[in-house]
Amino acid sequence: MNTQKKVFISLIICLVTVTPLLKAEKSPLSLWYDQPAGDWMKSLPIGNGRLGAMVFGGIQKETIALNEVTMWSGQVDDQQEQVCGKEKLDEIRQQFFNGNLAEGNRLATKYMSGTPHSFGSHLPIGDLCLEFNYPEGKIRNYKRDLNLENAVASVSFEKGNLRFSREYFCSNPAGIMVVKLSVNKKAALNCSVSLDLLRQSKLQIANNSIEFSGQASFPRQGPGGVAFLGKIAAKSTDGAITVEGNKLVIKNATTVYLFVDVRTNYKSAGYEALCRKTVDKSLKTDFQVLKQKHILDYQRLFNRVSLSFGKSDMEDLPTDLRWVLVKEGKNDVGLDALFFQYARYLLIAASREDSPLPANLQGIWNDNLANNMGWTCDYHLDINTEQNYWLSNVGNLSECNKPLFDYIKDLSVYGQKTAQNVYGARGWTAHTVANIWGYTSPGSGVNWGLFPLASTWIASHLWKDYCYTQDKMFLKNEAYPILKSNAYFVLDLLKQLPGTDYLVAGPSTSPENSFRYKGDELSLSMMPTVELVLAKEIFSSVIQASEILNVDDYFRDSLKIALAKLPPLKIGKNGAVQEWLDDYQEANPNHRHTSHLLALYPFNQISVDKTPDLAKAASNTIKYRVAAQGWEDVEWSRANIICNYARLKDPVTAYQSVVNLQRNFTRENLLTISPKGIAGAPYDIFIFDGNEAGAAGIAEMLIQSQNGYIEFLPALPVEWKTGYFNGLCVQGGAVVDLKWKDGKVQNAFVKATTDNTFKIKLANRGEQPKYYKNGILFSVNPDTDGLIQVTLHKDETLNLKYE
Amino acid sequence: MNTQKKVFISLIICLVTVTPLLKAEKSPLSLWYDQPAGDWMKSLPIGNGRLGAMVFGGIQKETIALNEVTMWSGQVDDQQEQVCGKEKLDEIRQQFFNGNLAEGNRLATKYMSGTPHSFGSHLPIGDLCLEFNYPEGKIRNYKRDLNLENAVASVSFEKGNLRFSREYFCSNPAGIMVVKLSVNKKAALNCSVSLDLLRQSKLQIANNSIEFSGQASFPRQGPGGVAFLGKIAAKSTDGAITVEGNKLVIKNATTVYLFVDVRTNYKSAGYEALCRKTVDKSLKTDFQVLKQKHILDYQRLFNRVSLSFGKSDMEDLPTDLRWVLVKEGKNDVGLDALFFQYARYLLIAASREDSPLPANLQGIWNDNLANNMGWTCDYHLDINTEQNYWLSNVGNLSECNKPLFDYIKDLSVYGQKTAQNVYGARGWTAHTVANIWGYTSPGSGVNWGLFPLASTWIASHLWKDYCYTQDKMFLKNEAYPILKSNAYFVLDLLKQLPGTDYLVAGPSTSPENSFRYKGDELSLSMMPTVELVLAKEIFSSVIQASEILNVDDYFRDSLKIALAKLPPLKIGKNGAVQEWLDDYQEANPNHRHTSHLLALYPFNQISVDKTPDLAKAASNTIKYRVAAQGWEDVEWSRANIICNYARLKDPVTAYQSVVNLQRNFTRENLLTISPKGIAGAPYDIFIFDGNEAGAAGIAEMLIQSQNGYIEFLPALPVEWKTGYFNGLCVQGGAVVDLKWKDGKVQNAFVKATTDNTFKIKLANRGEQPKYYKNGILFSVNPDTDGLIQVTLHKDETLNLKYE
Repeated sequence: MNTQKKVFISLIICLVTVTPLLKAEKSPLSLWYDQPAGDWMKSLPIGNGRLGAMVFGGIQKETIALNEVTMWSGQVDDQQEQVCGKEKLDEIRQQFFNGNLAEGNRLATKYMSGTPHSFGSHLPIGDLCLEFNYPEGKIRNYKRDLNLENAVASVSFEKGNLRFSREYFCSNPAGIMVVKLSVNKKAALNCSVSLDLLRQSKLQIANNSIEFSGQASFPRQGPGGVAFLGKIAAKSTDGAITVEGNKLVIKNATTVYLFVDVRTNYKSAGYEALCRKTVDKSLKTDFQVLKQKHILDYQRLFNRVSLSFGKSDMEDLPTDLRWVLVKEGKNDVGLDALFFQYARYLLIAASREDSPLPANLQGIWNDNLANNMGWTCDYHLDINTEQNYWLSNVGNLSECNKPLFDYIKDLSVYGQKTAQNVYGARGWTAHTVANIWGYTSPGSGVNWGLFPLASTWIASHLWKDYCYTQDKMFLKNEAYPILKSNAYFVLDLLKQLPGTDYLVAGPSTSPENSFRYKGDELSLSMMPTVELVLAKEIFSSVIQASEILNVDDYFRDSLKIALAKLPPLKIGKNGAVQEWLDDYQEANPNHRHTSHLLALYPFNQISVDKTPDLAKAASNTIKYRVAAQGWEDVEWSRANIICNYARLKDPVTAYQSVVNLQRNFTRENLLTISPKGIAGAPYDIFIFDGNEAGAAGIAEMLIQSQNGYIEFLPALPVEWKTGYFNGLCVQGGAVVDLKWKDGKVQNAFVKATTDNTFKIKLANRGEQPKYYKNGILFSVNPDTDGLIQVTLHKDETLNLKYE
Repeated sequence: MNTQKKVFISLIICLVTVTPLLKAEKSPLSLWYDQPAGDWMKSLPIGNGRLGAMVFGGIQKETIALNEVTMWSGQVDDQQEQVCGKEKLDEIRQQFFNGNLAEGNRLATKYMSGTPHSFGSHLPIGDLCLEFNYPEGKIRNYKRDLNLENAVASVSFEKGNLRFSREYFCSNPAGIMVVKLSVNKKAALNCSVSLDLLRQSKLQIANNSIEFSGQASFPRQGPGGVAFLGKIAAKSTDGAITVEGNKLVIKNATTVYLFVDVRTNYKSAGYEALCRKTVDKSLKTDFQVLKQKHILDYQRLFNRVSLSFGKSDMEDLPTDLRWVLVKEGKNDVGLDALFFQYARYLLIAASREDSPLPANLQGIWNDNLANNMGWTCDYHLDINTEQNYWLSNVGNLSECNKPLFDYIKDLSVYGQKTAQNVYGARGWTAHTVANIWGYTSPGSGVNWGLFPLASTWIASHLWKDYCYTQDKMFLKNEAYPILKSNAYFVLDLLKQLPGTDYLVAGPSTSPENSFRYKGDELSLSMMPTVELVLAKEIFSSVIQASEILNVDDYFRDSLKIALAKLPPLKIGKNGAVQEWLDDYQEANPNHRHTSHLLALYPFNQISVDKTPDLAKAASNTIKYRVAAQGWEDVEWSRANIICNYARLKDPVTAYQSVVNLQRNFTRENLLTISPKGIAGAPYDIFIFDGNEAGAAGIAEMLIQSQNGYIEFLPALPVEWKTGYFNGLCVQGGAVVDLKWKDGKVQNAFVKATTDNTFKIKLANRGEQPKYYKNGILFSVNPDTDGLIQVTLHKDETLNLKYE
């Protein structure tokens, strides 16, 4: 290679690191509206991974609903579970082995139920209210928007001859929410700043600031609660700021800045000083500097991915009108792309490297639409918290996993006691519901709460992160110890199924479902399929990890032996995947949960290519559920189906669910909802999982890598016939840029983020691309399966070009 | 009087009959939006008194939610009550007289509870769906509106170079719903017409029409249900109409007309032929003729009243934006006026001379947002149905009472059996809840359902109508027989209170409230205040009516004797009006019902002038309720408070409730709601009463006549400082036009609708107006109370002019 070529390659590599490899016309990336939000479901979310706010954009009165992710009631509970133990557990299991399932269920309920006393709930803070005094004049040209390209919300309108503008953002680097109010005429801005708090608070009002403090108690969920301090400070270029009662009153200003922080004592003894310091520091910083730092920080993550499914002729319409049109039956491929990028925006806003907690059931935006949010706005480990993070790796936001991993680590500590108490087992466990206080016990109702391998499910994210990043230091120091400890737990749970060589765990529930047995409707059985799938998953990932790290060879051997003795996945007499070890009759054929299909997604124990019969059975499982009368169609089950159909390589049905999710389970602000009346939702409740898992499903339609090779456009619907994406990640450690036209790949770049050998399944059957490695034409021959294999070093690029 | 003058006067009188006497700049009278309705609470209601529809205005898919007021499940029930009878009742009463209230409650529950088997529910029909095929092109200039001036809804927008328009109305004279679809380019309209029905139906599709038929069953509310037939026919100037599956498909049309009727067999054996005939006749009628007849018919009623509270600078904004601004704290006097006129529009749309049933809990627009609407969308006689008709007389829509009066007549027939069975009494009764099948028994739970004087409350509308219209033929033939029979019932219910001369009825409930007594929370007691108020009301109105008609002098005497023996209204030790005969402790100080304040409004047993102590106590009752923690603030209780404060001559607090009703209990389409979570509402439920009673409250702030004289602007808030109204009615038989400025009357016209002597309280303390009778200056002297007295013949006008 001559010098000229080397320089050329370096240049390409250099460009690669800062811009996507494929350029195309960009769709506008904002949510916008021509009216203020009349209610929460129309307001717009901003967040810095800890502090969250919903901006209503009111004209007369602006409402900014405040949240902080650690604002929890409850406390650590030393008595959260009964001591059942190995011996009693064996007695209970004997009932199951003897076919006395009803009695087994009764005993398990009696001896294994969790006993929470101070579970707590995530709680919203209340509203920051700005009330404005305007001169008379007509309101014109109102616009409010949330710009996903810079994570700044804004409002602007004219009143009479004046033009009022506002900007809002939550900065991660500065740890603060900033609001800028301005008007285009000197000294024409008059407003007041006050708080409408939901928690009992002590107020302290100084010349330019309001402080509020108190304890986040919510007696219905037990004693305890964090202590909190919030501070709002105002600054104006020229206006007068005075105190009137509980309000800051700002008169005759041209520009006003507000700085808001709220902190709690959750793992943070110095929260009060930190809150004050954060606000005071921002007060002294130039607004433009704050804003630029915020944008740079955000764009570092967000700009990694761009995508388009073609131009929609609705792109210049207000977002709520586009939403209405989709509800009316119109497809809007621009909204599909916007929905995907919005999920990435939301994840960045809810879950950052320094977030003290991962995203909960409502991300960090507790809606406070009920007295307490259904399901205590907590961490449900039987799919919802997992779904929150399905997008992170493929969506090139691996850093956003950090608070989840910290949280899993906490669970793995608290959960050792639970493993010992309830099961007499080593290692750690956690069950269906978890809080921030180390609740790892079974739920208080075992029919939904006895699901110890929820721990395995949530822990599987550690292994998945390694599969994408190939970060061996992370694997060794963070992931492996937790995975190994969980594998110990699962190993200790196994017991020989009488009359067979099989090892089974249990009793436990197939999340939240039940079956009919001898006239009873029961939830608990030995080794429901979901548990089998999770056991296989933890054993095989710990086996692989121990091999990669070259540690624990004896332990690895015992896992291998146990893995070989786990029963196989089975197909029931109705042709669907069997949900329980025995082929019980489903009590609720319309049930929302299909936990046994974890084997299909996110795991890879069922696949179209390798297990076609099980794939067909999985397809039947979904088909029967959806066709059942009164199917519990909610945001997360619908998002789940996108992922499942993408894995089943069924673009038609997958896309139907993409549209269905938008049509039936989103609201004007494009947040996803569990609709009222289904699965206990008392009203339309925002749940974060639909946004994230729905976007993960879209990614799954565009690219897959779970089979050991990269597959482009595995489930591309005709609606997206021409488009591109840049920056989606694949397992093995690479980033992919892709451009396609009329359903056919035109140009694909695979850029390694680590040294590795990559297999790629050739697209466009029958067509041979040209191959370029780091820009230089070379040749490679596909194997009999149509796979090519190329070794790349970190930052090297393989380009497949179809002509 | 010379001839010239006579002609001049005739001319004035002639003008008077067709146009209001006061002219002023008119506010625009429409609800309009720049987007389609994303949900029911944004869609717009149209109706012809029987057939109702909610128009969504969708672009891609238009949804028109259909309703018909007789679409009920259930059937006549011969076993709807137990036979308790006089003797058993006496035993039960003895427990109350002996102070054994808990036992009395228990026995009453056991022996007096209603036993409904087939109560039924009003049921919605489903949606008429229009799906459109458009050429590509951007959507621009979308507008949908409901014009209250002609009762026509419309939608228009541009798509690419085409402009699409639609009109929708429900014609009372033609008995049909009409939809017109058009485009500004020849043959550019392509759409399909289909039904998304909620009731199981048989479909018949011919070339240009769809018929659907079935039975309106709803098993949860018992057996039965009306049979129904619906027909939709399409007609096009030039397009081709074909059948594809269950759809009519219209291709290459320029204009399309749809005609929709739905009929049931409720009191209508020939409903099928009638439905088909109605549609077929409209098909043959020119659209412009249909539309003009509809508008003329509507305007005959609607145009009688106009009003303005001054110009608001928000009048050119979309209605939902104005609504948001009001929610944000802005007052919008234009919206106050619009809200008032919207209530008149809605009453005309829901309740006409030929309506087969009166307006139910949702008017005629069953939202179908729950599986069945809470409270079975029926006739609640313990305030809601009454509130539906509070506006009719003062709002110059006396004709709209007709279906209510027909319904009361039905109750008065069915209710004779109930009076006999349950109480061993003559006359008729009805209780808390009623259906279309003659359910007049106590509710199935007596704690809310044992309220026999609900019959008196609803019957009082007959007397009120006479007070306004002075129609003696109506009094004699329609009202008096029913009132008299109800007075018999109440008379038979009375029993001497041991140890006193007082007569009391009971046991019964003070609607839906309860009290504490010896450690128990109880609902039933002897003669709760509401019952006392109603007994006084029926006795005194029947005494007056019998005097006017000069009949039944012996019966009249016995009523006079009984009236004199009724206990007085009392003030409790907390300074509020006593809700029960004894001064029990309220079990729910936050309760929404204040039925004992019927004495203040709509009746006149408590007034600021005549009973100042009781008026103060009534004010305390409301004050305590509103201040109680968790006050059950719902649309109807809030509307009730407007009326109460208007009677208490407190414009500040009355207006606060006007705004509060708009802010917290209306939605984008300005329909009022019971918000989720309060009083059992599972979600925001549209309830008609808030629209009507809220508007009645506004009228009560502008004019009152219950004291035997007309009072102008009795509770005018500063927000309405300058304005006018034309056409509000007063008791005694007159219509009033009024103009005021800076809170002072400028010009008032009282036009007699019958020969009568009118007393008028002079406005603008200290100022003397000039008086004109039929345009001619004359003089009259006020008495010591500041009242003038003038006799007018029908159509004569008295004008008071302040200068």
